[in-house]
Amino acid sequence: MPDQSIREARTPGAPAAEPASGAGGVSRRALLGTAGATGLVLGAAGAAAGYAAAPAGPTPLTSVGSGRAVFHGKHQPGITEGLQACGHLVAFDLAAGAGRKEAAALLRRWSATAERLMAGEAAPHDDTGVARDAGPSSLTITFGFGHGFFARTGLEKQRPAALDPLPDFSSDRLDKSRSDGDLWVQIGANDALVAFHALRALQKDAGSAARVRWQMNGFNRSPGATAHPMTARNLMGQIDGTRNPRPADADFDQRIFVPASGEPAWMAHGSYAVVRRIRMLLDDWEKLSLSAQEQVIGRRKADGAPLSGGSETTPMDLEKTGAGGDLAVPLNAHARITRPDRNGGAAMLRRPFSYHDGIDTDGTPDAGLLFVCWQADPLRGFVPVQRKLDRGDALSKFIRHEASGLFAVPGGAAKGEYVGQRLLEG
Amino acid sequence: MPDQSIREARTPGAPAAEPASGAGGVSRRALLGTAGATGLVLGAAGAAAGYAAAPAGPTPLTSVGSGRAVFHGKHQPGITEGLQACGHLVAFDLAAGAGRKEAAALLRRWSATAERLMAGEAAPHDDTGVARDAGPSSLTITFGFGHGFFARTGLEKQRPAALDPLPDFSSDRLDKSRSDGDLWVQIGANDALVAFHALRALQKDAGSAARVRWQMNGFNRSPGATAHPMTARNLMGQIDGTRNPRPADADFDQRIFVPASGEPAWMAHGSYAVVRRIRMLLDDWEKLSLSAQEQVIGRRKADGAPLSGGSETTPMDLEKTGAGGDLAVPLNAHARITRPDRNGGAAMLRRPFSYHDGIDTDGTPDAGLLFVCWQADPLRGFVPVQRKLDRGDALSKFIRHEASGLFAVPGGAAKGEYVGQRLLEG
Repeated sequence: MPDQSIREARTPGAPAAEPASGAGGVSRRALLGTAGATGLVLGAAGAAAGYAAAPAGPTPLTSVGSGRAVFHGKHQPGITEGLQACGHLVAFDLAAGAGRKEAAALLRRWSATAERLMAGEAAPHDDTGVARDAGPSSLTITFGFGHGFFARTGLEKQRPAALDPLPDFSSDRLDKSRSDGDLWVQIGANDALVAFHALRALQKDAGSAARVRWQMNGFNRSPGATAHPMTARNLMGQIDGTRNPRPADADFDQRIFVPASGEPAWMAHGSYAVVRRIRMLLDDWEKLSLSAQEQVIGRRKADGAPLSGGSETTPMDLEKTGAGGDLAVPLNAHARITRPDRNGGAAMLRRPFSYHDGIDTDGTPDAGLLFVCWQADPLRGFVPVQRKLDRGDALSKFIRHEASGLFAVPGGAAKGEYVGQRLLEG
Repeated sequence: MPDQSIREARTPGAPAAEPASGAGGVSRRALLGTAGATGLVLGAAGAAAGYAAAPAGPTPLTSVGSGRAVFHGKHQPGITEGLQACGHLVAFDLAAGAGRKEAAALLRRWSATAERLMAGEAAPHDDTGVARDAGPSSLTITFGFGHGFFARTGLEKQRPAALDPLPDFSSDRLDKSRSDGDLWVQIGANDALVAFHALRALQKDAGSAARVRWQMNGFNRSPGATAHPMTARNLMGQIDGTRNPRPADADFDQRIFVPASGEPAWMAHGSYAVVRRIRMLLDDWEKLSLSAQEQVIGRRKADGAPLSGGSETTPMDLEKTGAGGDLAVPLNAHARITRPDRNGGAAMLRRPFSYHDGIDTDGTPDAGLLFVCWQADPLRGFVPVQRKLDRGDALSKFIRHEASGLFAVPGGAAKGEYVGQRLLEG
């Protein structure tokens, strides 16, 4: 059974070097690429695995459903895969009395569940049936550790320096109850019921060892809804992720993943995730004219091209001036400030979800971006960029950082191993 | 341009009699059918309309994106179309001082916006760009009037008797602030950003004439996530909608739509929507064994077959007993109580969304069903069935009706007309 195929409708930040081959038997990494170039969801060969097979007969080909990521590997899933249509971000705190032993057992349970669900199979125990009939739908499940985890498990000496709290930013309006957490789980899938099913299974696995601290639901464009080889649009209508590093870049691994020889050793091939719930002040934003919005961003809304000209991928001409002598891309334009080559080579892989939790008590939309970015070192990724934005970003009037988390996401588990085993049994 | 094609991945309750033909130029009704039988998303012919076309060149075929419903017609869209992956239900109250004139102007704006967005075009004014690049993605927008609308517009004499408040049910735990409303809008699409874009455009159209009273977000399985000709699964894992009436049924129109000669005249070809936010007590439900869950529902969880045997579509044998003499389908099983032929022929077309608003203050999931059902007369549809359920449904311990609305949804607007024009200018 060709069970290692991934079909993504778009691979916003992370097309791979290799072209996607026909079907099955090829590595996950090899398949991250070209389906996104057309936006078409290709019919993947082979039936979906596990209980996705119908009781009544063999499962015919599906498009979205048969997309499959693989749990075991050098890196955890959910980092370089294309954006999924649905996502849940959840933080857990270890329960009072739960320590290293309980945490190890939890990560073992979680890993077993993640492996099965990502293969389109039922959860190990008491499956709710909500994902039944659907294929794996490109489900990915990713686990991380927060700063507080290490003291609670007696593993302070193993806590990475990179997990030191992020600096305060003047524009932060952080809700502590929706920030941080001992453990972090990222769930993404191209079907909302598949994602919900995974969320419930992982919550049940937590048992008495951990309780949910916060949970956020997000979404991206559906596979097949657009035919353009674009990145993604956010709820401001802006193309997002244009300058994301790509796996084909020579320095991609170096920037995004902790090296094999990195410190601490248990973080080899891991990455650090910065999570920010960024409210968009859409009522204010939508009052701006198109031209004013483009001046704030520094790119054209329609196609993402820099205001200095060209297309989405054209490098920005920072010096170009217009007829009146003004810079084509204003000094405080968001896209100018965030350019990696003006941030000491800082690079992070942004892989967000949009969110929309309805209408707030003041009548404004509670909507925006669940910003998730990945880097080998937050002090060379998120922090320097956010510091610059904090000082002079024209976009800052239209957004509000409402929650924040920083998590150490260890490398992928080998077969027979669970995520974090090298930490918890090291 | 073949602009009348609808491609739905599933048509849960409402496959049409006619097979879907190749592309374009056929009526909406004719296209409601067979794509759902395979679960495959067919590549619809023709490019998506409006700004969905790329600045860089012609839009290639897409699957999900090119699905298109038509605004003008005998009935409003969003009733017989297949379930969409994303939905918003929104109620508005007319603002103080706004009357019939302002309401007419609002419905005219809303209709113009709905027609354009459903065609994949930009909103008439100040489009936010959020749906840009995506096709129409099977967007439907449906408008209804609540009981309070008629007094506020001086149209009491035009208020249908069918809009009289629903009776109280003993199991109701209704939040009035999330119930009722002067105006109701249902938005559905197979792309979350397309649905959000429509929501914001319609909210902006409301201007000073109406303000949002409540808003709910929902979802269903993604097109292509399953290959089975099934109805839908809800968050309890149960197949839902098995006994839904189908457009091919001889009495479908009679049961679901107000006849051409119906009263009041402005409701000709319209329908009544009952909307209930039904919380599922999932922590309790998931503690039940599979067998206990199946006894509550009266159907097998895996395939929806009645406990009396057969497959999903096999008629339930109400008299069948097991080895111990007990009824195979218990007397209080949900599926036994809701059988249309035991409810005086009552029939409603259920077309729900699931919802999941995160975790409640008590730690339980705030998740369940945005139940939407359609009928020619609520007193012969929802009410008798809910009365029976209220007396003895085994499922009632595991659900909680938290909000309720009843709306008169007029027939579709003809070209050049707006929805509700026959009421507001009658």
